[in-house]
Amino acid sequence: MRPLLLALLTALSLGASAAARLPNVIIIFADDLGYGDLGCYGHPTIRTPNLDRMAAEGLRLTQFYSAAEVCTPSRAALMTGRYPVRSGMAHNQFRVLRAVSTGGLPQSELTMAEALKSSGYRTGIIGKWHLGVWANDRPEHHPLNHGFDFHFGLMHSNDMNPSDKPKPKKANALVEQDPEWWNAALYRGRELLEPRTDQTQLTKRYTEEAVKFIDENKARPFFLYMPHTFPHTPLFASERFKGRSPRGIYGDVLAELDWSVGEVLKALKDRSIADDTLVFFTSDNGPWTWMGAETGGSAGLLRDGKGSTWEGGMRVPGIAWWPGRIKPGVSDAVMTTMDLLPTVARLAAVELPTDRPYDGQDAATVLFEGKTLEREVFCYYRGEDLFAARLGDWKAHFITQGSYGDPKPVKHERPLLFNLAVDPSEAHDIGEQHPDVIKRITAAVEAHRARTPKAPSQLIETVPVSK
Amino acid sequence: MRPLLLALLTALSLGASAAARLPNVIIIFADDLGYGDLGCYGHPTIRTPNLDRMAAEGLRLTQFYSAAEVCTPSRAALMTGRYPVRSGMAHNQFRVLRAVSTGGLPQSELTMAEALKSSGYRTGIIGKWHLGVWANDRPEHHPLNHGFDFHFGLMHSNDMNPSDKPKPKKANALVEQDPEWWNAALYRGRELLEPRTDQTQLTKRYTEEAVKFIDENKARPFFLYMPHTFPHTPLFASERFKGRSPRGIYGDVLAELDWSVGEVLKALKDRSIADDTLVFFTSDNGPWTWMGAETGGSAGLLRDGKGSTWEGGMRVPGIAWWPGRIKPGVSDAVMTTMDLLPTVARLAAVELPTDRPYDGQDAATVLFEGKTLEREVFCYYRGEDLFAARLGDWKAHFITQGSYGDPKPVKHERPLLFNLAVDPSEAHDIGEQHPDVIKRITAAVEAHRARTPKAPSQLIETVPVSK
Repeated sequence: MRPLLLALLTALSLGASAAARLPNVIIIFADDLGYGDLGCYGHPTIRTPNLDRMAAEGLRLTQFYSAAEVCTPSRAALMTGRYPVRSGMAHNQFRVLRAVSTGGLPQSELTMAEALKSSGYRTGIIGKWHLGVWANDRPEHHPLNHGFDFHFGLMHSNDMNPSDKPKPKKANALVEQDPEWWNAALYRGRELLEPRTDQTQLTKRYTEEAVKFIDENKARPFFLYMPHTFPHTPLFASERFKGRSPRGIYGDVLAELDWSVGEVLKALKDRSIADDTLVFFTSDNGPWTWMGAETGGSAGLLRDGKGSTWEGGMRVPGIAWWPGRIKPGVSDAVMTTMDLLPTVARLAAVELPTDRPYDGQDAATVLFEGKTLEREVFCYYRGEDLFAARLGDWKAHFITQGSYGDPKPVKHERPLLFNLAVDPSEAHDIGEQHPDVIKRITAAVEAHRARTPKAPSQLIETVPVSK
Repeated sequence: MRPLLLALLTALSLGASAAARLPNVIIIFADDLGYGDLGCYGHPTIRTPNLDRMAAEGLRLTQFYSAAEVCTPSRAALMTGRYPVRSGMAHNQFRVLRAVSTGGLPQSELTMAEALKSSGYRTGIIGKWHLGVWANDRPEHHPLNHGFDFHFGLMHSNDMNPSDKPKPKKANALVEQDPEWWNAALYRGRELLEPRTDQTQLTKRYTEEAVKFIDENKARPFFLYMPHTFPHTPLFASERFKGRSPRGIYGDVLAELDWSVGEVLKALKDRSIADDTLVFFTSDNGPWTWMGAETGGSAGLLRDGKGSTWEGGMRVPGIAWWPGRIKPGVSDAVMTTMDLLPTVARLAAVELPTDRPYDGQDAATVLFEGKTLEREVFCYYRGEDLFAARLGDWKAHFITQGSYGDPKPVKHERPLLFNLAVDPSEAHDIGEQHPDVIKRITAAVEAHRARTPKAPSQLIETVPVSK
């Protein structure tokens, strides 16, 4: 179908009120935020009034998944609507891109920014990119070369010191606020603003840039991707929020993140474009639980966290907001970040290329009609290896391994089996009683493997690293 | 102060609109409901729209505690505003009253019903009593002899078969719906209605009786205590709810409990007395986690469940609702069921006796002014023994033991210490770093012990039991 015809049909299907223009899209992406870390997801002492209000006015998803267990592959999946192994953005050993990495998201991939740009959207990224470390001799890794018109932020995580200085030995020391360890470089486009930016100001500055971007583009459809730097450690909050939360610095940082979300929604309301804007809030993966009591997040009732394929590693908060279009409610539809590209593509009247398979599905029925999604198997990868798979309410673990730092994978001859609707905490393996279900999931996984070839990994490090 | 003068002062302090009459009080008490089992406390697949709305319109407490880890002592504390050891309603071995028990709440205790009755309230209990097994030769154990004008329900838990028939061996079999095992006797006052009631109809019938009680007493101040039979196992739901929840029978039962709460609030609104009524919803203790995946509840992010002094055993949902008086919000004030008696006593212009100490505190500032409570140490008892204590955000464990069935207590020479505001999951013992805090809590506990004598236990079984 031709884009113009598709645009017309989409406009018709959106109804008279929204037909006037294509909707803006804002994706707010927290870093290492756990399933249990927001007030509206049940945390006892973290206060997130703005996100709670967003959830009360919008749709709160209780079974929403990031498409990977760590940062880089998760972001690749969000941007492409495809499993990270398809773009080579996963690796068993290296896990994520680091400052010394030379690879990045291949130019052959179509990003969400490129897709929306093709439909006339103005596109901006404010925050952490982490899909390639840009350098003068690697221009292809810059977000401006992946469909974004505007860029402000860090190239990678805030703990990736590109210098040779010795790193702190203990995980807990990651919160030490010594700028000697944490020289994160801040860019505006290709311009290096500050080689060692003051991280206490980052959330505030991202927010100011976001409001400015919204203001400058309020008259046309825009796409704003806002991948926050926090609550990834080391944790920094500005003066206004520091020391205020009973939850400690993690709670301070979340209070500031929550404030930021409130400012973005307020900017939309103040400019009377809230009714024309889909805002989606989620996280790139589960919480870094082994960071310690004060600096690690919480997966709530879910098992384990970041880096693992237990639910805590990949099930994250997911809140969709669009006044007048999304009815307030709670949904247990199974959705993933990979669904966002097909979903916004249709809203934006973008015809996706047919030369590649998409793993995400258009989730319009979930967001706008309160339905669940008929979906094939959802696969949980750790690096490049498929560890587990969910089919309906059932999840089978073929291999298990604890969070990020655990060196020992355990292969299960008889896969572990959990009914996630009944037992979201994965406490009761009932594989023995349901060999038929395991058979069904195993067959679905084999079919998935057959249609999901792995590209050579972009994450292999070729530069010697001082540790 | 004389009751009449106190009533006048209370009326004045309540302001002009509420001064017209003393407020009704309804306490809805779930059985074995866990901290993580409601939608508004973060459960992914259990839907509780009525309780969620009640929470959104009222005050949702995130640090609310039952005053005991199991059923009988918890109810004694609620009814008396005092630690269960004071009334002899705790025991290390027997834990709760059973069908063969001959003891009960001593007549010397002043119950919430008696307190409110003294101020002209009409009082009713609909549901499970469990503070004494009434018999013709033990008239003192009947709720009608503890201040209640009206009674409809069971004398004890729904799994306490007083017959000699063999019990199911496996815990999971507790959900078997064989009436041969589960002959729960239903009473209206002293009249035995059905020796083996149909438990699938219990929640529905409790609800009908509650609406009728409200209707009959709408013109005067009333106190309705509604201790539900579920989600204590065995689990039964009526046809309308059975088989509907993705969470299984536990979810069905909670959906019906949630419906019941909705009916009660609707009855108040329909009769225009919602503005004159404080409704408080909570649970008697944490979830029976070792019951298995489908029939055991969830403590959410909290550790362990029913029977233990880890947070999961005693921290429970707590929702206060009073349109026009309680402002919508979330509070992390530390409160316990023992606070409810002093709180409603003041609202009802009741002067509590001065011949006994109360452990609960008037929590009006929490409910009506959005403040926290300056409180002394809160102690976690397992049976008659003090296992742990909370002072501010700090909790020290002197003895730990897993849930209900775990036979081995572990005494800690250096108490375990957790900061619950930072680490609600009690995952990071930081006692080593804070000897000063342990010292402070230990001193507070010694002071508590000195002012908290233990009465002889009422729970000792003197009748031979067939197991």
